[in-house]
Amino acid sequence: MSKINVAVVGATGVVGQEIIKVLEQRKFGVSKIKFLASERSAGRRVSFERKGYTVEALDNRSFKGVDLALFSAGSDVSKEFAPIASKSGCLVIDNSSAFRMDKEVPLMVPEVNPEALKKAKGIIANPNCSTVQMVVVLKPLHDFGQIKRVIVTTFQAVSGTGADAVVELNEQLKAYCQHKEINPKVYPYQIALNVFPHIDVFMKDGSTKEEEKMVKETKKILSHRINVNATTVRVPVLIGHSESINIETVKEIKPEKARKLLDKAKSVQVIDDPEENKYPMPLSVSGTDDCYVGRIRRDSSIKNGLSLWVVADNLRKGAALNAVQIAELALEKKLIGN
Amino acid sequence: MSKINVAVVGATGVVGQEIIKVLEQRKFGVSKIKFLASERSAGRRVSFERKGYTVEALDNRSFKGVDLALFSAGSDVSKEFAPIASKSGCLVIDNSSAFRMDKEVPLMVPEVNPEALKKAKGIIANPNCSTVQMVVVLKPLHDFGQIKRVIVTTFQAVSGTGADAVVELNEQLKAYCQHKEINPKVYPYQIALNVFPHIDVFMKDGSTKEEEKMVKETKKILSHRINVNATTVRVPVLIGHSESINIETVKEIKPEKARKLLDKAKSVQVIDDPEENKYPMPLSVSGTDDCYVGRIRRDSSIKNGLSLWVVADNLRKGAALNAVQIAELALEKKLIGN
Repeated sequence: MSKINVAVVGATGVVGQEIIKVLEQRKFGVSKIKFLASERSAGRRVSFERKGYTVEALDNRSFKGVDLALFSAGSDVSKEFAPIASKSGCLVIDNSSAFRMDKEVPLMVPEVNPEALKKAKGIIANPNCSTVQMVVVLKPLHDFGQIKRVIVTTFQAVSGTGADAVVELNEQLKAYCQHKEINPKVYPYQIALNVFPHIDVFMKDGSTKEEEKMVKETKKILSHRINVNATTVRVPVLIGHSESINIETVKEIKPEKARKLLDKAKSVQVIDDPEENKYPMPLSVSGTDDCYVGRIRRDSSIKNGLSLWVVADNLRKGAALNAVQIAELALEKKLIGN
Repeated sequence: MSKINVAVVGATGVVGQEIIKVLEQRKFGVSKIKFLASERSAGRRVSFERKGYTVEALDNRSFKGVDLALFSAGSDVSKEFAPIASKSGCLVIDNSSAFRMDKEVPLMVPEVNPEALKKAKGIIANPNCSTVQMVVVLKPLHDFGQIKRVIVTTFQAVSGTGADAVVELNEQLKAYCQHKEINPKVYPYQIALNVFPHIDVFMKDGSTKEEEKMVKETKKILSHRINVNATTVRVPVLIGHSESINIETVKEIKPEKARKLLDKAKSVQVIDDPEENKYPMPLSVSGTDDCYVGRIRRDSSIKNGLSLWVVADNLRKGAALNAVQIAELALEKKLIGN
């Protein structure tokens, strides 16, 4: 693999930090690397492969000589700078929601729709964290039995919101243990010892933006014929999103068959032995790369129904890892560095 | 109302303690009261209306002269002593799962199936906490639109397990804040900063007993024609179960219509103003009596689909309060104290 020049945009955020880790761990062929952020975070220090770097403020010339830019600095930054980066000749992999539903932009999970890469014109979008882990698990089931409908309820970790929310949960837990007052800042309500069905902003139809993402992104990545109903819920967990997923298929998929299909699937691990209390949990999968599935059972409330419990590290497969995997595929297909 | 002699069985447990509170708060017409428990808890002290009582060990003569016995000491104790209590002429309201599916025993939520009281022959069963709050909210919707199918995922508080679990979560949070090791005792895994899809024991078909309860009890209480699929999940919350509920009805129920039906329903409160971040949460409903519903919205993945978010205090409407309300209805209908 030819070594390339990389820019990480939003390097000081939770996903940005995870991107740095993933690039190091996977020995991504970096020739030169630079770290970019908005004015607010510029000047901060980050380290990569034991060397220190100063985060530079983004401007119109930031992407000169850069082959690959990994963006995770929020939608507004992506909207402004991803087109600039792309125009200057570098491939952008964007972790924000800015371009996900753009018809000209592929929305990719390498295990699910690698063919989307062919349509890439400079920007590739990384899906929402809760969508990624769901479609990775649904793909082999859809290929076998054709999924008609998905009903999903999520249990989402605070790291999905960002570093501030991780600090907030930790501070609230400390305050609770010390019988001190809790004053939420990041979320509208206390998240310690609480749950709320509110992720991202509310839409006119009463669903949240996060729920809409799961509906629309699943259609774009997997199939427009799959109808999704999502309820997305924040829980007091640091890392690891869990999903209670119910599917209805055209062709019956027995639980044993589902286990076999999932066992063979790339980036999926089946942990499903209820008698031994084995099922995936956020605490046990945090820091790992795969999507874990358990509690696979027939849903007898309908003809071809199946229930699943899916857990993955929202910062890795849900964000940083998937972005780097897209970059690896783009390198392999010679979309970068030529 | 005539004053009656009451026995509280399992008075030192979390539900037993809540029964005492509910009897006091509702000024239940108690003439004499006694507190009973297994040998293990006998001798402990409890207080009722500012008077102290010593908990007595259960035996065959415990129910002599007692008109009403409220049981919440687990299935085994109920199986052994509820028939003895009933034979000695007192009405038993049992909070355990021992008799719930017994055809001779009514399974009751006063707002939902008060007519079941007519069949009472000495023992009345109180449903499982997660079932109670669901059927209270589903009842007015079912009456209007006839529910065909329910898909529910729960977020259940540790107090549903008992006092030990409340202590365990608090100790784990303290250990986490002090960077100390966490060694789970009550649950197979750490519950602080974690979630797991495991409540009660696992059944042969891969579902948990808790999931089976929600399926079977809903049928018995509401309608045998309703098919339920449940996934029950423990979350690090002290009090208050939350439920993500998706229903399919024969007749369409528009969200506005559902809100009107629920607004009029007894023991239901609609908190549903997403624009103002208003939806029910465990922290905001703990200690209160009603079942709260929000996030009411159309599920467009199917013809007549509706999604709801339901939260209630699992110790009150889910257990103690419902038991006392059954007793109040039985008193009104002169089933006790005659």
